[in-house]
Amino acid sequence: MIDLYTWPTPNGRKVSIALEEFGLDYRAHPVNILKDEQFDPEFLKISPNNKIPAIIDRAANRAMMESGAILLYLAETHSRFQGDDKWQTLEWLMLQMGGVGPMLGQAHHFLRFKAGKAPYAEQRYAAEAKRLYAVLDARLADRDYLSGTYSIADMATWPWISRYEWQGIDWADYPNLKRWYLTIADRPAVQRGYDVPMPVNPIPRP
Amino acid sequence: MIDLYTWPTPNGRKVSIALEEFGLDYRAHPVNILKDEQFDPEFLKISPNNKIPAIIDRAANRAMMESGAILLYLAETHSRFQGDDKWQTLEWLMLQMGGVGPMLGQAHHFLRFKAGKAPYAEQRYAAEAKRLYAVLDARLADRDYLSGTYSIADMATWPWISRYEWQGIDWADYPNLKRWYLTIADRPAVQRGYDVPMPVNPIPRP
Repeated sequence: MIDLYTWPTPNGRKVSIALEEFGLDYRAHPVNILKDEQFDPEFLKISPNNKIPAIIDRAANRAMMESGAILLYLAETHSRFQGDDKWQTLEWLMLQMGGVGPMLGQAHHFLRFKAGKAPYAEQRYAAEAKRLYAVLDARLADRDYLSGTYSIADMATWPWISRYEWQGIDWADYPNLKRWYLTIADRPAVQRGYDVPMPVNPIPRP
Repeated sequence: MIDLYTWPTPNGRKVSIALEEFGLDYRAHPVNILKDEQFDPEFLKISPNNKIPAIIDRAANRAMMESGAILLYLAETHSRFQGDDKWQTLEWLMLQMGGVGPMLGQAHHFLRFKAGKAPYAEQRYAAEAKRLYAVLDARLADRDYLSGTYSIADMATWPWISRYEWQGIDWADYPNLKRWYLTIADRPAVQRGYDVPMPVNPIPRP
């Protein structure tokens, strides 16, 4: 049994989608970040950075924070979803962790939540979103998934792309990424994981 | 023999410090990002995201991008610098990749390179820098290094902290992190790696 502490955000959905894909037994516990529940001292014990998602793997008696660490932990301990090559999968997982997630997160902050507060920052992150989409699109020109076969790199990246409506994206520019996005959106495990810890909106489809 | 493509930035120094710590035979090739050399089509082949650092491990015939992926590749293939627990090391490596690096990078952009362009963004990233320093300081209150013993998580984080002068930090608030920072600054391998591919400035000391 795995306890998952999460909220319906891209980082949260990475892990709920992975738990569904791996077919693991888990319980989801909402951590309402709109009510600052991530600052609860009990949650801090398992997530010292005060961020969702975090898990406790009860069988292994292990708490883990950081979505990328959790995905890699699941992939290695179950020897699954490692793509055609585990090191290439790691490269694209890290590109998600260091680039796609943080930079699209800043795009959400400035373009959606604080629109008008910092026009220069809006331009900066809208341009970076387009640049990252182009990198992903080029990667997918001659392969089905980021590491050949479906892997944790895709599970990490897809939930961020599913927020494309907040990122000022013109899908006509990214046909390979669009095909990838829609293919993954059709996976039943992705559809189940997307609605954890509660359904908020249907998966958007360009 | 490992070919390292790098520039004296925090992400570049992560890998040059690691190669020195692991005692591996390598050649450093400068990729001058001030002259946009990261957009060279030849470099793009090994780093599809147009970012330094990247390596080619000639013995394994493998190119790798993303500093966090390279560090984990070195740690796993050599079974070294994995801290007291490899999964805890991974958590803190991921916190560096997803938080410390990207957010301090934004602080550098707005506070140093584009000061005055977006006051709201300056406040945002200065506050996030302080928050992350506090998370690291708390982690180091009762252990010497982020994962107990010195590991790739420390090698990943230290070069970002070494740019503290750009981040508006008051060291009086972070005594544990300061002790950790200065201890690592004394390591000969860190001092050698810091000056790759060329010396730019001495390691700053608070």
